[in-house]
Amino acid sequence: MAEYTPLPLILAAEQFAKLPGIGMKTAQRLAYHVLNMTTDDVGHFANTLITARESVRCCSVCQNFTEKETCVICTDERRMNDVICVVESPRDVTAIERAGGFEGSYHVLHGLLSPMDGTGPEQIRMKELMARLSGDVAEVIMATNPTVEGEATASYICRLIKPMGIKVSRLAYGLPVGASLEFADDVTLVRAMENRNLI
Amino acid sequence: MAEYTPLPLILAAEQFAKLPGIGMKTAQRLAYHVLNMTTDDVGHFANTLITARESVRCCSVCQNFTEKETCVICTDERRMNDVICVVESPRDVTAIERAGGFEGSYHVLHGLLSPMDGTGPEQIRMKELMARLSGDVAEVIMATNPTVEGEATASYICRLIKPMGIKVSRLAYGLPVGASLEFADDVTLVRAMENRNLI
Repeated sequence: MAEYTPLPLILAAEQFAKLPGIGMKTAQRLAYHVLNMTTDDVGHFANTLITARESVRCCSVCQNFTEKETCVICTDERRMNDVICVVESPRDVTAIERAGGFEGSYHVLHGLLSPMDGTGPEQIRMKELMARLSGDVAEVIMATNPTVEGEATASYICRLIKPMGIKVSRLAYGLPVGASLEFADDVTLVRAMENRNLI
Repeated sequence: MAEYTPLPLILAAEQFAKLPGIGMKTAQRLAYHVLNMTTDDVGHFANTLITARESVRCCSVCQNFTEKETCVICTDERRMNDVICVVESPRDVTAIERAGGFEGSYHVLHGLLSPMDGTGPEQIRMKELMARLSGDVAEVIMATNPTVEGEATASYICRLIKPMGIKVSRLAYGLPVGASLEFADDVTLVRAMENRNLI
């Protein structure tokens, strides 16, 4: 934006540009949009963000976002609390819940181990996970993303937990349902072949 | 988002989804991001938006966004105030200023005529434009977008102004610089042919 652009507009655009996936062009478009909103709507938007930040906390058990001390999933007696699915972020919980079929509980790490970015076990919710394992736990399912960091985090946690005699599993690798062999990447294809199942 | 998602998080996502070009998926990602920001950062973000909305107004002359009563371009004595470039939005002013070479002044309509959406001459800054034309004006350049609404608005304004004896012009249509004939659309190609220049 140029020198004739009002400073508050530039500052608003810079704030939008800090959000993930929002580039400077989009940020400017959003800032201009804010000026076209009513003062009430802008105030409501601003307050909603502040309220969300202030009223939402992490569940004392699984660390997923919740408004209460303990989240809805952890307090649900129909769910198996001795099966813990470990994920990177609250969005992963949403994805698995949307897919359905999983009846255990979760543990949200809020990050992945990444020595390059200075993220060690202290920066993610490892301590809270280990505390839960002292109780009655039948299985820990590692459901971190199939990326370098996701793999590293899964194998790090697996190495810590296995000696405790707890069953540890990993989400299956293979062809996505509905995909075609022709367009599958090599690594996925090799994994699908290795993990083939008898029918 | 599902029933176990905290309500404030859903509300924040809904607010983001109201912004132009932000779909529900992106809005959810942004809402989750807000929860990972510090309380101070969220407050700062919210305040910046409110400040932008409250401190930025429309220039009393050209209707472009400004913090003052009259904008920097309208008060710049080096610019020709008798040449008025009519555009749809403040972003168009930014685009033309970035390109450089134009030394006149602007008039921002804050919209285009669109009977389908109920936008008539009263909903855009037509009254303010007509008021400026009673002064000393040499030329009005119609620089609305080359779309149906942009064309309709340009020809509507042209029909109003021409009888007043003021020169009215329209941005040239033709091939974009650096484009290839092969990929130009038919309408653009016909216009480029019609508007060919002697060399």
